Amino acid sequence: MTDQTRTAACLAVGSELLGGEKLDRNSLTITRAVARYGVRVAEKRVAGDDVGDVAAAIGELLHRHDLVVVTGGLGPTADDVTRDAVARALDRPIEHDDEIMEWIHARYAAYGRRTPTFAPQMARVVQGARPLPNNRGTAPGMLVEVDGALLAVLPGPPWEMEEMLERDLLPELERWSAGTVRLTRTLVLGGVFESDVEEQVRHLYQRFGREDISILASFGVVRLVLTAAGVEDAARDRLDDMEAAFRDLLGDAVAGVDVGGLPEAVVVELRSAGQTMATAESCTGGLVSARLTDVAGASEVFVGGVVSYSNEVKECALGVPLETLVDHGAVSEEVARAMAAGARERLGADWGIGITGIAGPTGGTVDKPVGLVHWAVAGPDGVWARHRVFPGTRPVVREWSLNSALDLLRRRLGAPE
Amino acid sequence: MTDQTRTAACLAVGSELLGGEKLDRNSLTITRAVARYGVRVAEKRVAGDDVGDVAAAIGELLHRHDLVVVTGGLGPTADDVTRDAVARALDRPIEHDDEIMEWIHARYAAYGRRTPTFAPQMARVVQGARPLPNNRGTAPGMLVEVDGALLAVLPGPPWEMEEMLERDLLPELERWSAGTVRLTRTLVLGGVFESDVEEQVRHLYQRFGREDISILASFGVVRLVLTAAGVEDAARDRLDDMEAAFRDLLGDAVAGVDVGGLPEAVVVELRSAGQTMATAESCTGGLVSARLTDVAGASEVFVGGVVSYSNEVKECALGVPLETLVDHGAVSEEVARAMAAGARERLGADWGIGITGIAGPTGGTVDKPVGLVHWAVAGPDGVWARHRVFPGTRPVVREWSLNSALDLLRRRLGAPE
Repeated sequence: MTDQTRTAACLAVGSELLGGEKLDRNSLTITRAVARYGVRVAEKRVAGDDVGDVAAAIGELLHRHDLVVVTGGLGPTADDVTRDAVARALDRPIEHDDEIMEWIHARYAAYGRRTPTFAPQMARVVQGARPLPNNRGTAPGMLVEVDGALLAVLPGPPWEMEEMLERDLLPELERWSAGTVRLTRTLVLGGVFESDVEEQVRHLYQRFGREDISILASFGVVRLVLTAAGVEDAARDRLDDMEAAFRDLLGDAVAGVDVGGLPEAVVVELRSAGQTMATAESCTGGLVSARLTDVAGASEVFVGGVVSYSNEVKECALGVPLETLVDHGAVSEEVARAMAAGARERLGADWGIGITGIAGPTGGTVDKPVGLVHWAVAGPDGVWARHRVFPGTRPVVREWSLNSALDLLRRRLGAPE
Repeated sequence: MTDQTRTAACLAVGSELLGGEKLDRNSLTITRAVARYGVRVAEKRVAGDDVGDVAAAIGELLHRHDLVVVTGGLGPTADDVTRDAVARALDRPIEHDDEIMEWIHARYAAYGRRTPTFAPQMARVVQGARPLPNNRGTAPGMLVEVDGALLAVLPGPPWEMEEMLERDLLPELERWSAGTVRLTRTLVLGGVFESDVEEQVRHLYQRFGREDISILASFGVVRLVLTAAGVEDAARDRLDDMEAAFRDLLGDAVAGVDVGGLPEAVVVELRSAGQTMATAESCTGGLVSARLTDVAGASEVFVGGVVSYSNEVKECALGVPLETLVDHGAVSEEVARAMAAGARERLGADWGIGITGIAGPTGGTVDKPVGLVHWAVAGPDGVWARHRVFPGTRPVVREWSLNSALDLLRRRLGAPE
């Protein structure tokens, strides 16, 4: 069995990560990657570009965890203190390495640039550390074993970090786990509430283990994350059993498995059905099409969309009749239906989505409060509409709208003819 | 003068913040709020729902910083360990408080709900702590002075956290700062590279202080953050001086001041010019319109857009001539120009933006590599086009495209007639 007691810590280095704008996101990638080998991230930290702070954090974390992953602070400028902080934390010397210097020259040459004068700073190696080449940037990383714990130091830019993580760190963890892995499978659910899902699946907790099932909700999407540990085949079989049991209970709430969200689920379903879709968006302002086209390969199924913020655009680009707009108002079931049908017909797709609503913060009335959203789906056999008053701020209302409309589409796609 | 040596740490509590999906965002709000009183966040941590881990972190942080802000873990369930962790870290007893229990009853009553049996857990107060009422939820927070340092414990949900932060914590910091504040002003720059800006403004570092100027770049937008500390009026005067000096150097690279980004800068400029715009997007897939409509009040200036993923939609919804598509290909200057002009004319706006490119990861050729993007702006006096091969992944290329197109628009808007 995987040793489930192994814990990890992530330390992100960089004063810019302590400002009011930017968050460290590398820790998410690291968390997901190490989980596969049964290593659980139990602590995260962010430190500024101060060699003392970084050294202190590394020292404390190595003392507490089996794995410490440091990201950032490896560049060539005076701000980049991580290398020196590692030397200080481990109380080991740091020395210039000619071979690393060669790598660095080669990297700059590959970009057609002369090696800058400050680059040799990156060629210094902490005694006993294994330097890790960087094929996507110039700053090398390092791996060091310290009293049974492993310290991995990776570059801050995600693209560079990810390559080193996969190529150099994960094989070490694979060795730790001695052939066992910890696999996860995520059922993405649409059109359901977290509390209802919890109620429905609760009795499976005992059968499969409470700690191997987690439920995460986010504005119209619920993710059920299943985990199984063991030798790869056995873990996969167990996940198959779990998935089957949960599908039995959840039925058509399951929009997809191991997909990023409803946009990806919809792209996958349309592709397998060989069908296309188009969008007509008002309050979501292009968010639905932006998310659909975030999915690589969306161009096979998504022909395009219209963002109709003004009534004139609803009329001229989507063919929503002026009377409908006047009689029912732009935020109405009738307009949502006409938008969906207009997108489908005018843009030439099998399916059309229409969304109109009041995302706020202003624009609400007694009859049509902020948060009221109408959405509709037009398909080969008809048009279906729904509405709800969503709680929350403007971005939250937009997110709920996006997921609700995509959920209606994928349910119609999957409906028996 | 503000005591600039005061530092703070943020500790977010919650095992869900140690998973592979969710990040603590409260620390950003806290960082921005405390900065006003000269308090610098020097460290951030995330701990899981483990009373020992949380207590250890609180103890270490109080030892190092003047202010420690803990968020989350204050609810009524067994997972909520923060209250007990504070008691353990400070080695003080924790006792039931009848007055707090009354608050909690009143909060549940306000929601029309009976107080749950586990609620009294939230009415326990660490000895010597000042309990903080929660008007947006049920869990009270607390403020404790510990050997000259201040420990603030706030709820995890941002909406609840923000109220307590403003109402209870910031007045304490105001007292610390004795009438002085630390103000920032952000110049948002478009169409320039970070390194060029650095080069251009470097000689002002000496005049205004290196540590009061920071440059942040993100895919086509550069932010120059200026800071000044002192009595409010003096700090504001100094920021005016700084802004004037930087504007002298940067000229029309400055797209806006204290705006969220180029979408907001464009909305502000269009509104003050009393003009409107429309979009035609291919590789950005609706991202430009989604970002524009993220800005509250965008409906005054943004009439709508077309996402033309297929050539048919480019032709029928935007009027891009078939010959242009055939002769030059969908990713070409000619098509970008026709899209911009089509958006402007078909959707009835003063300005139109057209973007067509290859966001990747596939679809590139030798002549038209992944990352090649053409964008154009059509206005009352003509059509302007630009192109570039952007480096990076699909979302990075899309982000660069969005900012580049909006930058071209706002430069034409500001151009002399």
